[in-house]
Amino acid sequence: MSPVFGEKIKITVFGQSHSEAIGVVIDSLPAGIEIDFDELAQFMARRAPGQNSYSTQRKEADKIKVLSGIVNSKTCGAPLCAIIENTNTRSQDYDNLLEIPRPSHADYSAHIKYNGFNDIRGGGHFSGRLTAPLCIAGGIAKQILAQKNITVDAKILSIGGIENKGDKFISDEIIKAIDDVRTKGDSLGGIIECVVNGVPAGIGDTMSGSLESKISSSIFAIPAIKGIEFGNGFECASLKGSQNNDPFYFDGDIVRTKTNNHGGILGGISSGMPIVFRVAVKPTPSISIEQESVNLKTKENVKLNIQGRHDPCIVPRAVPCIEAVTAITILEEML
Amino acid sequence: MSPVFGEKIKITVFGQSHSEAIGVVIDSLPAGIEIDFDELAQFMARRAPGQNSYSTQRKEADKIKVLSGIVNSKTCGAPLCAIIENTNTRSQDYDNLLEIPRPSHADYSAHIKYNGFNDIRGGGHFSGRLTAPLCIAGGIAKQILAQKNITVDAKILSIGGIENKGDKFISDEIIKAIDDVRTKGDSLGGIIECVVNGVPAGIGDTMSGSLESKISSSIFAIPAIKGIEFGNGFECASLKGSQNNDPFYFDGDIVRTKTNNHGGILGGISSGMPIVFRVAVKPTPSISIEQESVNLKTKENVKLNIQGRHDPCIVPRAVPCIEAVTAITILEEML
Amino acid sequence: MSPVFGEKIKITVFGQSHSEAIGVVIDSLPAGIEIDFDELAQFMARRAPGQNSYSTQRKEADKIKVLSGIVNSKTCGAPLCAIIENTNTRSQDYDNLLEIPRPSHADYSAHIKYNGFNDIRGGGHFSGRLTAPLCIAGGIAKQILAQKNITVDAKILSIGGIENKGDKFISDEIIKAIDDVRTKGDSLGGIIECVVNGVPAGIGDTMSGSLESKISSSIFAIPAIKGIEFGNGFECASLKGSQNNDPFYFDGDIVRTKTNNHGGILGGISSGMPIVFRVAVKPTPSISIEQESVNLKTKENVKLNIQGRHDPCIVPRAVPCIEAVTAITILEEML
Amino acid sequence: MSPVFGEKIKITVFGQSHSEAIGVVIDSLPAGIEIDFDELAQFMARRAPGQNSYSTQRKEADKIKVLSGIVNSKTCGAPLCAIIENTNTRSQDYDNLLEIPRPSHADYSAHIKYNGFNDIRGGGHFSGRLTAPLCIAGGIAKQILAQKNITVDAKILSIGGIENKGDKFISDEIIKAIDDVRTKGDSLGGIIECVVNGVPAGIGDTMSGSLESKISSSIFAIPAIKGIEFGNGFECASLKGSQNNDPFYFDGDIVRTKTNNHGGILGGISSGMPIVFRVAVKPTPSISIEQESVNLKTKENVKLNIQGRHDPCIVPRAVPCIEAVTAITILEEML
Repeated sequence: MSPVFGEKIKITVFGQSHSEAIGVVIDSLPAGIEIDFDELAQFMARRAPGQNSYSTQRKEADKIKVLSGIVNSKTCGAPLCAIIENTNTRSQDYDNLLEIPRPSHADYSAHIKYNGFNDIRGGGHFSGRLTAPLCIAGGIAKQILAQKNITVDAKILSIGGIENKGDKFISDEIIKAIDDVRTKGDSLGGIIECVVNGVPAGIGDTMSGSLESKISSSIFAIPAIKGIEFGNGFECASLKGSQNNDPFYFDGDIVRTKTNNHGGILGGISSGMPIVFRVAVKPTPSISIEQESVNLKTKENVKLNIQGRHDPCIVPRAVPCIEAVTAITILEEML
Repeated sequence: MSPVFGEKIKITVFGQSHSEAIGVVIDSLPAGIEIDFDELAQFMARRAPGQNSYSTQRKEADKIKVLSGIVNSKTCGAPLCAIIENTNTRSQDYDNLLEIPRPSHADYSAHIKYNGFNDIRGGGHFSGRLTAPLCIAGGIAKQILAQKNITVDAKILSIGGIENKGDKFISDEIIKAIDDVRTKGDSLGGIIECVVNGVPAGIGDTMSGSLESKISSSIFAIPAIKGIEFGNGFECASLKGSQNNDPFYFDGDIVRTKTNNHGGILGGISSGMPIVFRVAVKPTPSISIEQESVNLKTKENVKLNIQGRHDPCIVPRAVPCIEAVTAITILEEML
Repeated sequence: MSPVFGEKIKITVFGQSHSEAIGVVIDSLPAGIEIDFDELAQFMARRAPGQNSYSTQRKEADKIKVLSGIVNSKTCGAPLCAIIENTNTRSQDYDNLLEIPRPSHADYSAHIKYNGFNDIRGGGHFSGRLTAPLCIAGGIAKQILAQKNITVDAKILSIGGIENKGDKFISDEIIKAIDDVRTKGDSLGGIIECVVNGVPAGIGDTMSGSLESKISSSIFAIPAIKGIEFGNGFECASLKGSQNNDPFYFDGDIVRTKTNNHGGILGGISSGMPIVFRVAVKPTPSISIEQESVNLKTKENVKLNIQGRHDPCIVPRAVPCIEAVTAITILEEML
Repeated sequence: MSPVFGEKIKITVFGQSHSEAIGVVIDSLPAGIEIDFDELAQFMARRAPGQNSYSTQRKEADKIKVLSGIVNSKTCGAPLCAIIENTNTRSQDYDNLLEIPRPSHADYSAHIKYNGFNDIRGGGHFSGRLTAPLCIAGGIAKQILAQKNITVDAKILSIGGIENKGDKFISDEIIKAIDDVRTKGDSLGGIIECVVNGVPAGIGDTMSGSLESKISSSIFAIPAIKGIEFGNGFECASLKGSQNNDPFYFDGDIVRTKTNNHGGILGGISSGMPIVFRVAVKPTPSISIEQESVNLKTKENVKLNIQGRHDPCIVPRAVPCIEAVTAITILEEML
């Protein structure tokens, strides 16, 4: 058990919210692949905070520093390590005692797992900030997949139960809803859909090697994800086989299905149709409304008021993260 | 990538629907654990077909034969191999050519992956029959967990969109609905909920080591699963943080949450609350209603009529399978 | 930690000396590979006992029964499971108490590891008999490698310190020496050399992914191996760099080295030269000469006399085992 | 296949000789372990160059910078990343064409594996410099093992065939021999013995999970190692079973063996006796004497003269590296 993705490509994410740096090691990338670091920076910018009214107003530079694995902008076969330095770290000793766990955060469960030694500053290793190195790896994976004509694109289907209509990344109606909860110190969740185009038929494996197993395993590595469904997902449970089955037909020489209820995966293996899945993102647990919690030291029930500015809705910033871990997973399967 | 579960306990499932035998190797079980093989047989019986009107009328003995790993009914530390002999196998050469893939089965995707060499008799390695060895491993895992006061129980929430009301395993209303589709050669899917009680706080890991990653990876190893959601799952996407967050409180000396929207997992790590998740099971793709498909040999679009008797609804038989892979996963995390 | 070989091809060996069967699961073999089972039987025969004066007189049939993974003599992509049934097993309960561990066997260390629950009949899972399923996997790997023009050949360099001169598998002088120790109830060890021809340059990896790491890891899975050296091995420690370095030259278009002190591996990666290594096999610890041991029950020092007929020298039977695990390892690296 | 050590503790080494930094990620260390960074620096100093006449005169600072995983000098459960910045790196594009591979270096085999994209500056990822991050991980592992009363100590047995007599780390006779080859532009290899004390009986596993498999796999991750032998090693091949077997006896309540020919490992599992093994280190391939090689561009045989100052003997600096990877391996098995 361990926070490492993949078997062929191994991706290890390290860092805490307030450690010297956060980063990622990507091991066993093929050698000789050109990485466009400007494009990568643009991808990272999609995850960065402080860009608009619906995300936190903190400013993080998120400047990528490559420590190894790249020669003349190309992968050299050695593990690629890239870091983002944290600018707000303190090196001196400090009080690391967790007294009051924040509801629906990892504070309590991590406290028990690590016997109270986990870094609690800013959520430590459980901070959403750790999705930044995931996006470094994912942005690189996306570039390699693009060279194979495989695209990974996620979009917001709904936020707070409001359907995301229109062509914009987020509709005005949703932005208004986010603004509304922000002023009240509350937060909203949402649903993201991800589509992978270009994966040929025959990729994946049986049992826990299934594409659904691999993708879901990676997706749940992202904090705040509570569900995943492939193709028509939970809806299939209300359908008859005759309604749910996807008829095959020849599109020229290519076998395709008329519908895609199966979401591009049959028996754990790609069918050649687009891989489609949706994930549920919970509302940010960091809210400034008073909550009930416990004081682990005094063993009393207490009221908790969380200070600071937080994302009223992390769904928009989760979109590139979904793309990132999906791209990593698909790349792994393609090698 | 490979159909092996687990890192500490390694579970390998082998066999095809018509091979000599199907079976499982369970590697690295602790030594000295007493296995109750009568209890295991009872667990297996829950998955067996031919028991009632809503499953297939085929009769399979599913008699477990232990080849290794057990001495005097106790695990001996060596890999445990148990098999179920197939009685309907043919050893002589035969035609293994797939001409017409069945819609929403693994026929086509497996054909591509294995260059046409996969065993197509009865679905081969992709047959639902391969969940039998999974249940051997899962039944053993359940017994070991029970010794740690951990229980894994799944139940049917709905079938074909009909809520499963009352105390029975399946309500009369649902049995009637299944009978109805059976007579029409059609099939139904459904939703299963699984609850794991007794897992202490602090189990699991970060990133793709999260309990959600591990459980979902195992669950999607079962054929026909199209979605999984933890706690309140997709519903969280419509809630505000103030509604979704689960307040902590002291229940005597024990920290608990007043609600369990998080489903017993926070930051990938158990919170001590019951682990709760739901899965969507698609309607059996094997229906006797005429369907559209392709002839891979002649490259023509064709009509397909599947013969034979099939489960009009595999949801009831999926219930022990869900328990099995969940028990395997939780046991792995507890060691 | 677990008795599984490989990451791409996963090989799991199960069984005990007196369990119902011993066997192997080979997972993720490419589909469509024709296996010559007669050739495999011939390979197995090289490991089988009872063939001549220098091995044990027990007769084991070692008849391979394929349970899964083969369709029309070809791999079908599903895990291949093959077993050898044990004919001398007892299913009723019996006394499994280890009282007196045999010197230089696994009896004592396994007893501690498994808290006394390990199967002690005939050495249980630690019996040399478990190299039979390894040879099934290895024999298949050899056939697949042969299709890529890669050969794996081991031979005996010396036994009991006597150099194995001449063209025979074992020289008459050595057979005489084995006969001699056999009559005295003693045993002999020896040195085996293995050469892998045909591996192209560029196979392997860095760090613990080095070919030496992979090969040595597999070799030490065979009981009784106490050392391994690549190329000129330990001799290099007495040489100067100018003597030990292997000069490159062009042999036509192919880069070769004039000497092969490096044993075909540089920086963990194949150089294109033959891969050469030697292993030390200890004398069979089963001897009928009286030995000193302990009674774990009474906690007394005791004398031990081991009954039964045992190999006076397992070196000849180790030769195909060395080839087997080497072939498995090289195949894994070639995929 | 990948340069990652371990399954429970995962250690990833990254960096090239001339990349921005070299470093290591250690994943899944237990939380709450105090690390003495002064002691770690002292351990690192044993590997550092430029300290005496028998190693290279280059000066590397090897200052450890911890990026993550440590809070108040204690492990916090999150992956520990520590780096050493390289001071001589060039960020601008440069010529990365390998023309003439150095004999017995990884130049040629890596060139083939990575299609010429590997970083060739200073040996790239294959540089002995990459043992520095291994020593960071190993130094930490040694500290954790010491808390369990397990010690890992290596020493030089011989260099250039000269036995290392006396109490000194290196005898005067050997220093003189090294000085001698240094003036001639040549180099020497040697033999190192490593002893692990304090490992309780019962640690390890069967097959490729054997302690010998695990230790040898790690040892061969160190460049220049050509052989490993456990206990009496290759000598056992000349002994009779009656000479080689180690008699058991009770030392008070503890079972011990009178001799330790088995090197503390029986059946892949620790016996409680000291774990003892020896490794052969080849002479540094970097010599300044003219050598024969090939020009890969012009496809001609050429003479090669390597410039620069290099270790005439890396054996002394390999000693802490041997301890490092052994400590990592033993720690992995003890968790």
